[in-house]
Amino acid sequence: MLQILPVEGIAEIRPGDVLADVIVAACGPQLQHGDVVVVTQKVVSKAEGRLVAIDPLDPRGHQPLVEAEARRVLRRRGDLTMTETRHGFVCANAGIDLSNVDAGWAALLPVDPDRSARGIRDRLRALLGIEVAVVVSDTFGRAWRRGATDVAIGIAGLAGVADLRGTPDALGRPLQVTEVCIADEVAGAAELVMGKARGVPVAIVRGLDPVFLREASVAAEIVRRHHEDLFR
Amino acid sequence: MLQILPVEGIAEIRPGDVLADVIVAACGPQLQHGDVVVVTQKVVSKAEGRLVAIDPLDPRGHQPLVEAEARRVLRRRGDLTMTETRHGFVCANAGIDLSNVDAGWAALLPVDPDRSARGIRDRLRALLGIEVAVVVSDTFGRAWRRGATDVAIGIAGLAGVADLRGTPDALGRPLQVTEVCIADEVAGAAELVMGKARGVPVAIVRGLDPVFLREASVAAEIVRRHHEDLFR
Repeated sequence: MLQILPVEGIAEIRPGDVLADVIVAACGPQLQHGDVVVVTQKVVSKAEGRLVAIDPLDPRGHQPLVEAEARRVLRRRGDLTMTETRHGFVCANAGIDLSNVDAGWAALLPVDPDRSARGIRDRLRALLGIEVAVVVSDTFGRAWRRGATDVAIGIAGLAGVADLRGTPDALGRPLQVTEVCIADEVAGAAELVMGKARGVPVAIVRGLDPVFLREASVAAEIVRRHHEDLFR
Repeated sequence: MLQILPVEGIAEIRPGDVLADVIVAACGPQLQHGDVVVVTQKVVSKAEGRLVAIDPLDPRGHQPLVEAEARRVLRRRGDLTMTETRHGFVCANAGIDLSNVDAGWAALLPVDPDRSARGIRDRLRALLGIEVAVVVSDTFGRAWRRGATDVAIGIAGLAGVADLRGTPDALGRPLQVTEVCIADEVAGAAELVMGKARGVPVAIVRGLDPVFLREASVAAEIVRRHHEDLFR
């Protein structure tokens, strides 16, 4: 059985806050070896000071910021700019979002979300003496399907993609789908207890198969390279 | 808190099996009002007899079947044929998969997976006198990100896309991401306890916010129409 627990009682995060300390203050004694701690990008960006003031007189709003942050613009339609970020993520508006940020400010994505995840994991280990995995999650739209879902933009101690090549199916024959993005499924599961409007930026996923707990990286495992992508 | 429980002990499903009866036999007394029952496409297709023999002498394998089932081929590379199905799903090989099916056979997608989900839900209500939601899930690849994830191809009694327009964020300002695909997040969460190789085709998601439990349809809410899609 998997359990997904929202971490309540986390106050507004400010630049310089140490997220692992905040998490320990909110739920430290409940954390267990093998838990996956999912932290939304917004609070990671805030803690890391990735906040930029938006010129209130610019009628383009935060669009200049989107252009500056994007490595490439893939599509435009109306207010929507589909971009590729420097990390290689394909998402709206270079991942810049104004929700849950003070008026007049925008939050950029962390510079290196895998590193952000590792930092939180390392400090949780130091503080609590237990080994947990950490996922930094963000809400991205998709091609072909309506509605955004939460996905992993940074991971530490959790598989990005589980490689099932060579694994037999339940009937003993080779599996056809051989790569499952565990980290994105964990991020999406956590979103179900966090919500956008409830101010719950952290959730714990407990009971995940330990086979998925290993050194890993979104950048290395999940970001699909240009030359492998049929839809970019 | 959300709980995700694998339903163990379900034997091989054969054409004509009534899935709701099988589910009740495996876990009926545990099912509760408000649970979401996630059932993989493979067992739904088997129960509905969506099995087709593959000509063992055809060097093209099941490719002719893929061509026949697809409404449109979007891209080809090597063994991979990215298709649009008659349902409007964009997925590899028209959703036809040979894993966990007897050798020499292929399983096609259900004709109407929303209807499949409704049928299971209606019979669970009749048998148990409780109201649950049902998701038929399948494993689809995505653009831009490596690894497949489980998504909803049919739903009954569960929101496809939660519309958060008009909802304030935690700071009281309008949310920017306004549509979240709850059903896909539920399907992905369930995959984490089912796995491809473990022969667990059903999972229960318990504790979901009741606001997401309502009449709904993947076809109506999640399938993005051609003219809305920037990446088809």
